[in-house]
Amino acid sequence: MNKSIRVGILGAGGFTGQELIRIFAHHGAVELVYLTSSEYADKKLSAAFPALAAPIFANLRFSPHPKVIADAPQLDVVFLATPDEVALAWAPQFLAAGVRVIDISGAFRLTNTTQFQEYYGLEHNQPSALGEAIYGLSEVNRAKITSARLVANPGCYPTAALLPLFVYRDLLDFSRPVIIDAKSGTSGAGGRKEKDTLGYSTVYENFRSYKTAKHQHAPEIAQEISRFAGMQAKLRFTPHLLPMYRGILSSAYASVKTGKSAADFEAAARKASDKEVFLRYRENVDAVELRHVQHTNFCDYAHFIDNETGLVQIVSGIDNLVKGAAGQAVQNMNLMFNLPETSGVH
Amino acid sequence: MNKSIRVGILGAGGFTGQELIRIFAHHGAVELVYLTSSEYADKKLSAAFPALAAPIFANLRFSPHPKVIADAPQLDVVFLATPDEVALAWAPQFLAAGVRVIDISGAFRLTNTTQFQEYYGLEHNQPSALGEAIYGLSEVNRAKITSARLVANPGCYPTAALLPLFVYRDLLDFSRPVIIDAKSGTSGAGGRKEKDTLGYSTVYENFRSYKTAKHQHAPEIAQEISRFAGMQAKLRFTPHLLPMYRGILSSAYASVKTGKSAADFEAAARKASDKEVFLRYRENVDAVELRHVQHTNFCDYAHFIDNETGLVQIVSGIDNLVKGAAGQAVQNMNLMFNLPETSGVH
Amino acid sequence: MNKSIRVGILGAGGFTGQELIRIFAHHGAVELVYLTSSEYADKKLSAAFPALAAPIFANLRFSPHPKVIADAPQLDVVFLATPDEVALAWAPQFLAAGVRVIDISGAFRLTNTTQFQEYYGLEHNQPSALGEAIYGLSEVNRAKITSARLVANPGCYPTAALLPLFVYRDLLDFSRPVIIDAKSGTSGAGGRKEKDTLGYSTVYENFRSYKTAKHQHAPEIAQEISRFAGMQAKLRFTPHLLPMYRGILSSAYASVKTGKSAADFEAAARKASDKEVFLRYRENVDAVELRHVQHTNFCDYAHFIDNETGLVQIVSGIDNLVKGAAGQAVQNMNLMFNLPETSGVH
Amino acid sequence: MNKSIRVGILGAGGFTGQELIRIFAHHGAVELVYLTSSEYADKKLSAAFPALAAPIFANLRFSPHPKVIADAPQLDVVFLATPDEVALAWAPQFLAAGVRVIDISGAFRLTNTTQFQEYYGLEHNQPSALGEAIYGLSEVNRAKITSARLVANPGCYPTAALLPLFVYRDLLDFSRPVIIDAKSGTSGAGGRKEKDTLGYSTVYENFRSYKTAKHQHAPEIAQEISRFAGMQAKLRFTPHLLPMYRGILSSAYASVKTGKSAADFEAAARKASDKEVFLRYRENVDAVELRHVQHTNFCDYAHFIDNETGLVQIVSGIDNLVKGAAGQAVQNMNLMFNLPETSGVH
Repeated sequence: MNKSIRVGILGAGGFTGQELIRIFAHHGAVELVYLTSSEYADKKLSAAFPALAAPIFANLRFSPHPKVIADAPQLDVVFLATPDEVALAWAPQFLAAGVRVIDISGAFRLTNTTQFQEYYGLEHNQPSALGEAIYGLSEVNRAKITSARLVANPGCYPTAALLPLFVYRDLLDFSRPVIIDAKSGTSGAGGRKEKDTLGYSTVYENFRSYKTAKHQHAPEIAQEISRFAGMQAKLRFTPHLLPMYRGILSSAYASVKTGKSAADFEAAARKASDKEVFLRYRENVDAVELRHVQHTNFCDYAHFIDNETGLVQIVSGIDNLVKGAAGQAVQNMNLMFNLPETSGVH
Repeated sequence: MNKSIRVGILGAGGFTGQELIRIFAHHGAVELVYLTSSEYADKKLSAAFPALAAPIFANLRFSPHPKVIADAPQLDVVFLATPDEVALAWAPQFLAAGVRVIDISGAFRLTNTTQFQEYYGLEHNQPSALGEAIYGLSEVNRAKITSARLVANPGCYPTAALLPLFVYRDLLDFSRPVIIDAKSGTSGAGGRKEKDTLGYSTVYENFRSYKTAKHQHAPEIAQEISRFAGMQAKLRFTPHLLPMYRGILSSAYASVKTGKSAADFEAAARKASDKEVFLRYRENVDAVELRHVQHTNFCDYAHFIDNETGLVQIVSGIDNLVKGAAGQAVQNMNLMFNLPETSGVH
Repeated sequence: MNKSIRVGILGAGGFTGQELIRIFAHHGAVELVYLTSSEYADKKLSAAFPALAAPIFANLRFSPHPKVIADAPQLDVVFLATPDEVALAWAPQFLAAGVRVIDISGAFRLTNTTQFQEYYGLEHNQPSALGEAIYGLSEVNRAKITSARLVANPGCYPTAALLPLFVYRDLLDFSRPVIIDAKSGTSGAGGRKEKDTLGYSTVYENFRSYKTAKHQHAPEIAQEISRFAGMQAKLRFTPHLLPMYRGILSSAYASVKTGKSAADFEAAARKASDKEVFLRYRENVDAVELRHVQHTNFCDYAHFIDNETGLVQIVSGIDNLVKGAAGQAVQNMNLMFNLPETSGVH
Repeated sequence: MNKSIRVGILGAGGFTGQELIRIFAHHGAVELVYLTSSEYADKKLSAAFPALAAPIFANLRFSPHPKVIADAPQLDVVFLATPDEVALAWAPQFLAAGVRVIDISGAFRLTNTTQFQEYYGLEHNQPSALGEAIYGLSEVNRAKITSARLVANPGCYPTAALLPLFVYRDLLDFSRPVIIDAKSGTSGAGGRKEKDTLGYSTVYENFRSYKTAKHQHAPEIAQEISRFAGMQAKLRFTPHLLPMYRGILSSAYASVKTGKSAADFEAAARKASDKEVFLRYRENVDAVELRHVQHTNFCDYAHFIDNETGLVQIVSGIDNLVKGAAGQAVQNMNLMFNLPETSGVH
């Protein structure tokens, strides 16, 4: 690349912003020209992220959020790491200004606006942008992402759950319910504000489910399974809060399609792992451990076939802040700008 | 009670032994007359358990393990907190000497000796004792426990999983598979030796399944479900290791029996909670939290009916060292000696 | 005891309230007749403390805070587990009504009202009550506590730091500075509100000092050292936040008084341990571990004499919620009502 | 750089080896040509480090330890991440073969061989190599490191303790004792084997000192303070074990030299921070937090002057596996090969 990509981040003062900035510090083909934050406006980067106080970041400052699009400098791509309603409002404006958009919020993931209203409590008033949004599950939608103007970066639970289900999609009977029992560290359970108030005394040495009936990632997972299954998926999705910080382990229980063998599963698992740099097949479900994926963009996965019940257990692990957010977003940017898919992410 | 119960503990130097001793310190009707340990033989209690160095324990010492039954003093009841093979050998001898036995190992839980051999790697050579052993799930088998000579105290995972399935047993379609996705703190994953070598660096900030294909509690759970279901249960059981110490959260996914309503579930949940002092119905699955049951003998539980899939999710939480081991063992002792069921346990 | 002590707790909805209620549940000589809370007024105990949802607590409800003293029922003793300003206002009123007071806030600990204003940001307008307040370090002031009407229960850091310095007081050169480097779990770092907002993401896998220049326990420690040293102590006190919940480890570095030997230290250590049920001498500083004192009223301690520097290192450990708050408060109540000092606490 | 540096790592299967390999993966000027391990000999890198299973590492394999120097390929530099006795034996052989050596063990840190024998339990039989070893505290000995053939990479506690004492060295009265109360995560408490057996049940929710009387880093710290103080330092050093994994916080209490002011401290602090890329002055001791230095090569530090006692408290934080081991080792390699000091480390 002769020329750096000019990148902006809206809402750069949160945890996803921090991960993006960390990645871009060693990306090589990116120039960070615009970081906005209401809380840290006009402050140096180190005010928000003391860990990032280093010479390489010494000149970075936060701008206030733009009031009008003209407040933003010229950009090649903008990452929206803002609340949903902010992303909903700004994505179309950046598109109109010729800036490609990678939206890390949930604003453009659900194609059904009624469902969006139900789960996000917001009216979806940007049907045009929604219509052209590409769901940014990199390994699944690579070709479309490459030419996308607007990428809806997947949620953390959906990324963990969908990648291995996609790998094994031809071997599963999607007419039967799929149960996903997922467990996340605290960094996956909200924005920086919420995370800061997830009290130590209620998280440490504790474990529980949350939002069992109504997590906004449930319809997102069901929508995408339905897409590659070619039929309406029946999903029971339950997120849990682990007494730790980083990582999601997702256990899916699905029904083996009639006639499919252990060899078929093994073959599908290996084929995906061989083809995709960020998919690692672990051979044994017990070998999928969160410590092996933390601070990486990998999705580790494995399967266990239970002949007694006819179920297959598909286990996957990711770092929710990397593959589940900032890492996959940069992977998508790399695709969009014809860079090596691994630039900055590993 | 005019007279104290004379109690012995074989293998009192482990974590279950410690919990038993803690409980008996404030039980009121028990005299601890015999504590054995190979590692701590002839040492004071505080050598094994520095936290228990207090006047009330000042005179307690460990004896070496008995060589012959005559080495043991006269006892009313003995708790076996030993490895399986030791319990297998000693239970019949204590019974023969007129001492009632509460076995906290797995030696007398499985009625099928072939299965026992498969999962425990031991030949079961005590068919007579096995024949009279009562499975000590207190709330389920109370009447039989009262008159039992030999109680097989349930495993920690089985206790967590079985109690709520028993509560809702009439509302579930046991011809369909039952999936149990269980999560345990490290204290539930082996004896004191194993626990001490579960390295901090491999547990902290990590999460994974273990023994997915072959945990010895799987056949125990299946056996007991089958008993109250009246048919052979089809079970997929997966234990996981939480980055914490105490507690098991068990999530069961089962099929709702045709014709059963939400009101039926609510009624069954309340009826059990009203009747049983140690069963607490939490109304909402997300309110079953491990911190609420730690250091107690309670089993908290709740259910969530998912109309889309026809599944009901039954979540329960216990302290694996209390209700899942020492606490339930003392509850059983209380039943066997006509003491208030809550003596020493709460 | 023929007659139960009628006990009230003002501010019973916080963590100290919870510990008090837990203790009283098994105390034997106490009747809980009055629990107040603004947040949980008119609610059942289990609304504030789900873990305490048990038959023994089934009838307990919170009252709103009293508006006038006549709102409170007749009591023998009231525990003030409220913010400082509330305790400051209510202690005199309960005293006037003939109710003995154990104040767990900091309102009556500092004898110097100027210092109180500086560290607590409050004017001390109750000089009369302050004049009769007894500093409730049980082992140090036992005789005075017995007849006290108002006990100022010590802070958690002061309890950990002062007990062993008192044990070794005749062997230390208090004309030289005393350095106290103390480390606490999160439950010692504020009231329930603050604790709930000590975010998991800022506590886990982290360690740092806090309030180095200005912790309100510094003058309290200096005041009490000065009292038993017979001279103005020079203190450098630094509290730190451990990535855990319960317990304080306090490391004091002091100068050995000229002519005092290792044997003198050993003798003083053993003498205290032999005399006091809640003081445990551990012989080796490395054997003072927080896990040995958690959920107990013990203070473990040991010393290490460093001949090269002439310093002695005195290490102590307590559970900040028990010996550092509710446990010592109950110990003091036991003294005040001529009960066995260990009733309910162990 | 036209030509890559040919690097070997002896003992590459441990935690320091893992950190070195991670760093070299993105260093840019290094070719990893020789990794030895007895445990993982002839296995792929991913056998030891599942997290490192990625294409970039796909061809890396462990060799068995060399029997004779000819077993090793031609190297420019070798890192010794082995036990002390192995490093003691191999460093001279590599030097003789013209390979520069960076020893991460303790074999060449202490200049006094009697003291070495006392603390390491080994006779030091390599006086010639010891004579030329340069103590690799990068910011302190930069010039000597540049031309060194053998660098003794500092211990983790010494790195944390010495860097800020060096910064403030002209302002401290080293005729008075220096107290260092240091706290480390578990990864600083031994090699991989020891770390794996630091049981979760004894570390989590616990805190204690260890090796109070005899840690091998005490003479190392005293030796180096004495060097820049120009007089024999009197040191009281106590390490503690934090319930976490990464990082060391070191609190030094020293006496302010007569006539030195707060402004002098501020000036010294800023001067060092301005000059050195890896030293970050935090202005407030409470702002030195382990989470800000984890996974980085920074040493954060600050001071607090206590006028009442005449003491200054100097607090510093590092990542023990990076600045305290592998990161500083690579920083030293960069110096030795005239590379930018920040290559691969940040």
